[in-house]
Amino acid sequence: MNKQTKIAVLGGGSWATAIVKMLSENLATIGWYMRSAYAVEHLKRNKHNPNYLSSAEFNTEQLDLSDDMNYIVENYDLLIFAIPSAFLNSELEKLTASLKDKIIFSAIKGIVPETGLIVGEHFHQTFDIPYENIGVLTGPCHAEEVAMERLSYLTIACQDQEKAQFLSKCIASRYIKTKISDDIVGTEYAAMLKNIYAIAAGIAHGLGYGDNFQAVLMSNGIREMKRFIKKVHKMKRNINDSAYLGDLLVTGYSTFSRNRMFGNMIGKGYTVKSAMLEMSMVAEGYYATKSAFEINQKNGAKTPIIEAVYNVLYDKKEAKDEFLKLTDKLN
Amino acid sequence: MNKQTKIAVLGGGSWATAIVKMLSENLATIGWYMRSAYAVEHLKRNKHNPNYLSSAEFNTEQLDLSDDMNYIVENYDLLIFAIPSAFLNSELEKLTASLKDKIIFSAIKGIVPETGLIVGEHFHQTFDIPYENIGVLTGPCHAEEVAMERLSYLTIACQDQEKAQFLSKCIASRYIKTKISDDIVGTEYAAMLKNIYAIAAGIAHGLGYGDNFQAVLMSNGIREMKRFIKKVHKMKRNINDSAYLGDLLVTGYSTFSRNRMFGNMIGKGYTVKSAMLEMSMVAEGYYATKSAFEINQKNGAKTPIIEAVYNVLYDKKEAKDEFLKLTDKLN
Repeated sequence: MNKQTKIAVLGGGSWATAIVKMLSENLATIGWYMRSAYAVEHLKRNKHNPNYLSSAEFNTEQLDLSDDMNYIVENYDLLIFAIPSAFLNSELEKLTASLKDKIIFSAIKGIVPETGLIVGEHFHQTFDIPYENIGVLTGPCHAEEVAMERLSYLTIACQDQEKAQFLSKCIASRYIKTKISDDIVGTEYAAMLKNIYAIAAGIAHGLGYGDNFQAVLMSNGIREMKRFIKKVHKMKRNINDSAYLGDLLVTGYSTFSRNRMFGNMIGKGYTVKSAMLEMSMVAEGYYATKSAFEINQKNGAKTPIIEAVYNVLYDKKEAKDEFLKLTDKLN
Repeated sequence: MNKQTKIAVLGGGSWATAIVKMLSENLATIGWYMRSAYAVEHLKRNKHNPNYLSSAEFNTEQLDLSDDMNYIVENYDLLIFAIPSAFLNSELEKLTASLKDKIIFSAIKGIVPETGLIVGEHFHQTFDIPYENIGVLTGPCHAEEVAMERLSYLTIACQDQEKAQFLSKCIASRYIKTKISDDIVGTEYAAMLKNIYAIAAGIAHGLGYGDNFQAVLMSNGIREMKRFIKKVHKMKRNINDSAYLGDLLVTGYSTFSRNRMFGNMIGKGYTVKSAMLEMSMVAEGYYATKSAFEINQKNGAKTPIIEAVYNVLYDKKEAKDEFLKLTDKLN
């Protein structure tokens, strides 16, 4: 970890773009892998991402852009993955360059569907990356507000606090405050679970529940998240820290959240399939729900909200009936 | 506490009206004191409150309406006060009937400005009501959603759990779920403090901070609330229960909250005085801020948000500067 440690971002979406923007406040060179050759060309010529956060303008002299993932992996030391979890596995299949000795930070909020693992675990199990080389970069943070340079607080988690500190300094700027943590498992599960609660918030809204219920749902959600994570990885953590509660709130109260929107359509009567078709994408919380439900089958934490969402998404239960039952389990 | 225990509501605002509506689902007779003789007459003739929640229709045969507070106090055993805290003292000056042996529930979220006390303490100190006869009725609950019969969860707190249980049963219905608690001090302080955080949320919004910051502010707010209440009255409580966190969220995220609106005007550059004039009322959090600040001068909990709001409202500090300093104290 020193000034020679070279940092790259992998991903072409809005969150990847926001992370590159944050880094560009501090670094002379940032590697940036994007799958789309068109987007790479467009960025080089027009200084902004054609598809996401296009209001964010870059100084292209700082960017080492490439649509070749292997080039980026070979030439950079600290790799920040910000590829949607649903595409991560197929993207990683392109990889021929070695990940040995690389530091991997996950900025992905979700579960890798093929393995049912959170991203850190996936890299550890599939690529033999030791945990001290794995980290997490988490919000509460809408990428759109980074583009607008609105003050945001990020948490950088890594078992190796020196690595967390290093990335933390590279990310911090006038509009970004950072905090380090050693809870990679907890912060990553929190980032994944919050999408399930955002789906639940959407379903409730779609069914006609109001703001009073939403507050009760979120207040139960954070207590449920605490119980769930405690079973997965018990350690001292304050669940009301920004990386857990803050992240839940920024998503659960956002009307722009795709997970909330997906839930809302289901609450309004769309089938799961038609909601997915209509959105022409799969909300990350969809996979998270299945995975969280299955993990908790073994762990046995009390998670009525996750169960209700699971029953609606995977067990063809009517949202109306499931949420009526759920209301009796909340307090 | 039995079926003969007669319940009355004192107050003519939207929250008082919502409570009468809830009780009317279960009780044959409800006493209801309203200061305005016009409102009493209107209600008798037209079955709805002319000024607040006018969509809520009442069966007037259930209502024992009066603009004479002494009549209501003399004839009822359990009195639910839902008079705005700023007017409570002047209203109580009318009182000639004795409060001895009455059970007093506070549905008031705030501080009595004349004594700087929360309502339960005010009744205890000023009227010698023993604590076992004092209770609190709290949300998260927008009165408007009660009028719409949207599912809401209330917490009824009393040291004497039998009294809490009794009122809890009288309030619960198809659209109201209730929970009892023995934390009258904590729930009442939470209900008061949340208004300060709602002012802070409004100021931040007015200054141009976004949703990412709002999530961080609320996540710091609940930690600060926990520290504040712990100093005032240490006992085992889960600050993420609906009566604390839920109540904070329903107000902090509501664009209809008068406290948030007041803060928003200040963030946009109104002076405190002109914001009050413009709103033609004083937001409850205005008094709460002074009182909370003073209480904490003695207690010494870490409360940077309360201090920032205090400095803006009472110490003529610029909102912009105070919040810039505040951002360094949050995480």
